[in-house]
Amino acid sequence: MSHGSGADNGVSPGNVPVCYYGGAGRVPAALERRVRAAELFLRCAACGLALLAAALLGADRQTRVFFSIQKTARYTDMQSLVFLVIANGMAACYSLLQGARCLLSILTGGVLTNRPMAWAIFSCDQVMAYFTISAVAVAMEAAMIGKYGNQQFQWMKTCHLYKRFCAQAGGGVACAVAASLNMIVLSLVSAFNLFRLYGSGKGRK
Amino acid sequence: MSHGSGADNGVSPGNVPVCYYGGAGRVPAALERRVRAAELFLRCAACGLALLAAALLGADRQTRVFFSIQKTARYTDMQSLVFLVIANGMAACYSLLQGARCLLSILTGGVLTNRPMAWAIFSCDQVMAYFTISAVAVAMEAAMIGKYGNQQFQWMKTCHLYKRFCAQAGGGVACAVAASLNMIVLSLVSAFNLFRLYGSGKGRK
Repeated sequence: MSHGSGADNGVSPGNVPVCYYGGAGRVPAALERRVRAAELFLRCAACGLALLAAALLGADRQTRVFFSIQKTARYTDMQSLVFLVIANGMAACYSLLQGARCLLSILTGGVLTNRPMAWAIFSCDQVMAYFTISAVAVAMEAAMIGKYGNQQFQWMKTCHLYKRFCAQAGGGVACAVAASLNMIVLSLVSAFNLFRLYGSGKGRK
Repeated sequence: MSHGSGADNGVSPGNVPVCYYGGAGRVPAALERRVRAAELFLRCAACGLALLAAALLGADRQTRVFFSIQKTARYTDMQSLVFLVIANGMAACYSLLQGARCLLSILTGGVLTNRPMAWAIFSCDQVMAYFTISAVAVAMEAAMIGKYGNQQFQWMKTCHLYKRFCAQAGGGVACAVAASLNMIVLSLVSAFNLFRLYGSGKGRK
């Protein structure tokens, strides 16, 4: 961190005491700190929410007896819920690792000015954001069919048979929605962290 | 467009004839031209693919007779396909408008240095990318149930009954996948166009 001598905009000779971090993608230090704190908070929140979603869905089961036949509904009965559990498990692990990296960079005070590293984080964040939102969309479609059925194709609704199962699955899907919204915001933060590296460097006088 | 006097990196005094467009987010003119040409191409491709997807799904129907009862499968029988047609129709219109804006900016030679405008384009692109990928995921889940069914919940597979309908719907979904991949790349381009505006301006000497 260093104190810059001011704005290099060719207008003022520079007596504005704005504090910048070093490197290519220079932004005021206050903004830098706020962005990093927000990123750490969002990564922790995403990790917690994804874990909660996976736990709610994974532990979800309901047994009922129909005409002396015992049937148990589990998340494994529906491929879309299996996909959602896997996606959220991956999102939780990923967020944990990224959160640790973020915390480390705050503690050491290092700034991300390395383009390949910024590209790697950005790419992973983008993939995870689209992956989690797709998993949520897929699960919501299956949930809609479970709740309302499809008369034309004779897909009967099943949620009135397994009410508790559906309620808990709904909670899990809600947590997954919140986690994937977090992942989307995080992908914007990493886009900001990457592309601001391209705005400066070879500045015109 | 103007000829910069060179790199302002404090090492060379500047005899490298690099050509820059004016404004805050300065990048070499050659890169600027390539980014804009790529954006125009992608917008046109997204428009065409989304239109094709909507047309293939919208015109998709198959009539069959089961025990003297005539049944017709249409995209309106499945809410997820209706959602996909609407999403692709919106994506086609949006891409057309954005393509026109892009062409206009190439013809007039103007550069996007206005942050609110860049934020507006970026936000719309992000929303459209997540919207189209969600619609595709939802349709694919319904297609999987149609093809393989779900024994546990007694959702029978229907694709063996309406083979031609399913094949055409598959083609429509494939076009929608290609269109949404285009939208994702476009959202990256607009992220680049926005966030590079934040990297420069107040450069440190």
